[in-house]
Amino acid sequence: MSDDTVKFLLPEDRIPRAWYNIMADFPEPMAPVLHPGTGRPIEPDDLAPLFPMACIAQEVSTEREIEIPEPVREIYKQWRPSPLFRARRLERALDTPARIYYKYEGVSPSGSHKPNTAVAQAFYNREEGVKRLTTETGAGQWGSSLAFAGQIFGLEVDVYMVKVSYHQKPYRRALMEACGARCVPSPSTETAAGRAILEADPDSNGALGIAISEAVEMAAQRDDTKYALGSVLNHVMIHQSVIGLEALEQMEMAGDAPDVVIACAGGGSNFAGLVTPFLGRKIKGEMSPRVVAVEPAACPTLTRGRFAYDFGDTAHLTPLVKMHTLGASFMPPGFHAGGLRYHGMGPMVSHMLHLGLIEAVSHHQLGCFEAGVTFARTEGIVPAPESTHAVKEAVDEALRCKAEGTARAILFNLSGHGHFDMQAYTDFFDGKLEDRDYDQAILDRAFDALPRVAAE
Amino acid sequence: MSDDTVKFLLPEDRIPRAWYNIMADFPEPMAPVLHPGTGRPIEPDDLAPLFPMACIAQEVSTEREIEIPEPVREIYKQWRPSPLFRARRLERALDTPARIYYKYEGVSPSGSHKPNTAVAQAFYNREEGVKRLTTETGAGQWGSSLAFAGQIFGLEVDVYMVKVSYHQKPYRRALMEACGARCVPSPSTETAAGRAILEADPDSNGALGIAISEAVEMAAQRDDTKYALGSVLNHVMIHQSVIGLEALEQMEMAGDAPDVVIACAGGGSNFAGLVTPFLGRKIKGEMSPRVVAVEPAACPTLTRGRFAYDFGDTAHLTPLVKMHTLGASFMPPGFHAGGLRYHGMGPMVSHMLHLGLIEAVSHHQLGCFEAGVTFARTEGIVPAPESTHAVKEAVDEALRCKAEGTARAILFNLSGHGHFDMQAYTDFFDGKLEDRDYDQAILDRAFDALPRVAAE
Repeated sequence: MSDDTVKFLLPEDRIPRAWYNIMADFPEPMAPVLHPGTGRPIEPDDLAPLFPMACIAQEVSTEREIEIPEPVREIYKQWRPSPLFRARRLERALDTPARIYYKYEGVSPSGSHKPNTAVAQAFYNREEGVKRLTTETGAGQWGSSLAFAGQIFGLEVDVYMVKVSYHQKPYRRALMEACGARCVPSPSTETAAGRAILEADPDSNGALGIAISEAVEMAAQRDDTKYALGSVLNHVMIHQSVIGLEALEQMEMAGDAPDVVIACAGGGSNFAGLVTPFLGRKIKGEMSPRVVAVEPAACPTLTRGRFAYDFGDTAHLTPLVKMHTLGASFMPPGFHAGGLRYHGMGPMVSHMLHLGLIEAVSHHQLGCFEAGVTFARTEGIVPAPESTHAVKEAVDEALRCKAEGTARAILFNLSGHGHFDMQAYTDFFDGKLEDRDYDQAILDRAFDALPRVAAE
Repeated sequence: MSDDTVKFLLPEDRIPRAWYNIMADFPEPMAPVLHPGTGRPIEPDDLAPLFPMACIAQEVSTEREIEIPEPVREIYKQWRPSPLFRARRLERALDTPARIYYKYEGVSPSGSHKPNTAVAQAFYNREEGVKRLTTETGAGQWGSSLAFAGQIFGLEVDVYMVKVSYHQKPYRRALMEACGARCVPSPSTETAAGRAILEADPDSNGALGIAISEAVEMAAQRDDTKYALGSVLNHVMIHQSVIGLEALEQMEMAGDAPDVVIACAGGGSNFAGLVTPFLGRKIKGEMSPRVVAVEPAACPTLTRGRFAYDFGDTAHLTPLVKMHTLGASFMPPGFHAGGLRYHGMGPMVSHMLHLGLIEAVSHHQLGCFEAGVTFARTEGIVPAPESTHAVKEAVDEALRCKAEGTARAILFNLSGHGHFDMQAYTDFFDGKLEDRDYDQAILDRAFDALPRVAAE
């Protein structure tokens, strides 16, 4: 590699053969998932109506390496190994001594890291005889990834899309339909949950919590149908570890090692995907990078939330998981990084923070978009609004290096491109975006609604 | 390579070191470009106010290989060599014995082949002391590519965007602004041409011809400013030859040779880019693929146009070039493949058809979108509306193979993704698109307006 090399690309045969499961290396195990009725740890059979057994097994696995099925690796080959770039033009623009690297997951067919798990989940479902997958989507990135994966393995995909998004974001819907999914505005008349909402309010705009209820209801009702989730759960985090496993090798190709590893975190899957392989090395004492999760100040689960048992959805249909949460009743405002608008944080990522393995920071959206534009103008890629949070922290870190006169190596995850999010950039340019903070009193009220769990 | 290999990726050091110029190998030379006033061949100095000398020299070069400047190759490394894929899932869906390959140019920062020439043009302009580039854009793909390239080399980029598109396609505009360009709705008050139009019609929606006039006027007026064009001209075609040069090597990696090479053609640059290296081999007798240009039936320059001298713009400001044309007064309807809405065809591509080196077919947009959706549902990539024309012809050819029971190898150029064209897919799904044919009488009227040139 010359000094001018900007792209580090692995050959196809270096797509990992096994995912990495950090649960094998945690110094203390994660808290069990609890049944909301009994308050006792749930059994695999409790989840069987919703998920294939292979994913349920991964959910509680302590195997360090989980073999990637060959048909999944075959599909990965379409865009993996994804490139790792040295952001030399960004470095020059910031006039920083820091070395900035980014792993770029926007090269996937749907433009983000989501297909890494969508393909695996679709494969396992097909193997277990499932004919149809249901899911919910807000912005649509996950919906289009599952649509892509479902088509490949011959599964129907029904996406319950929050009605207001369905109408406001017709291009996301068109993308899902172009990829073969059926996209249903939620609340719909297809489910009891949807009908109940419509009866009370025929003009309901919907909400992610309602869409989840509809998707779960449809999956639970039919034997040939299961439900797929794009983040939060452990098996999703495990599937995403391909990102970090490749990045480890690519940093070696670059002859460098990161001093800081950064990713944005909403449910936590692109974050866990990049950082867990590095944390595995850190736990073994082989490297010692700082690892930083970046979240929006308008939905500050890691920086201002409680580490407590809570429901995963607003309708309280899911099991109870121990996570950093603002409370299932917390309604984040309508800011543009839709993928980061979740009241909780994936339990695996929450556990990492609890153990002190990672740090968390929050940023306001205006600063994030500004960093995103700086990135677009130097590196030529328009980041997804979610990914701008990682860009912002990487830029700040590079500027700290400049102020200190130190030359750290910074690695961040550019989890997706912003091609379907140009309205956000338009609003930013037009000065229509605002930052949003919370009085502690508002958060405290949401905390008061947290469920009381015997196990705590 | 195993039989299952679907992606053929060259290492970075296989980015070509020289572009291929088919003008060196044409059995008869292209007709000269004429000055519209004198009817005599134009001199390089006539073009100097608009283009850098390096590009003007390439315009008439008969050198077979034109060295790619190292700073341009450096930028190419961000996305080049672009992948060549075997479309196995599409083959299975069509149940065809054909082997279908596609070269994918959508991996570039702006999502199409356009940066291949934008980067080269920006470099040459910077080398010759230019500070600012002007251009026009309809849909915005070219504008965003030049914005990207201009930023890299420290050039300001002013894009005159047809006013109706400026308002109807705010996401394209946001993309250009995110990449650092100034985007001006045309007609504007910045130019004499724009002011004249606005005086006559304050509510003018603009047109590509007007935007060209504005961009050319601004470039001609200022010493530090030049004009950049994204297709049609010979130097643009030459820059795009990196596509075919890589594809030649990748087909060798695949252990295969194309029997048919297909690309869509509007101005002709993605077509020439893919096919000229194959045609060079064909002229030398080293291979004998059929080479097919695909155009929209609603703008049938190659299949129904005349091979004659004509103006490149509706305002008759450009020199006269010999090309397949529907007449500069022909106004194509507002179909969705905006990049294929040009009354003429690049002179180099026109010359290929004139010499019998290539064939041309036209397709209606409904069939093209249908093929595009089939492609998205199998290969996972939503093609740009322009690119669906190549997909349609490849699918038809594969179905002919099936009917004949022959197993030909088909290679086509997937020149870009459709992420910024989802309105077109939405309209297609909603049944709002129509096909459009022309009575010969309409075309004949446009032909009557062709300039009479002494040299003919």
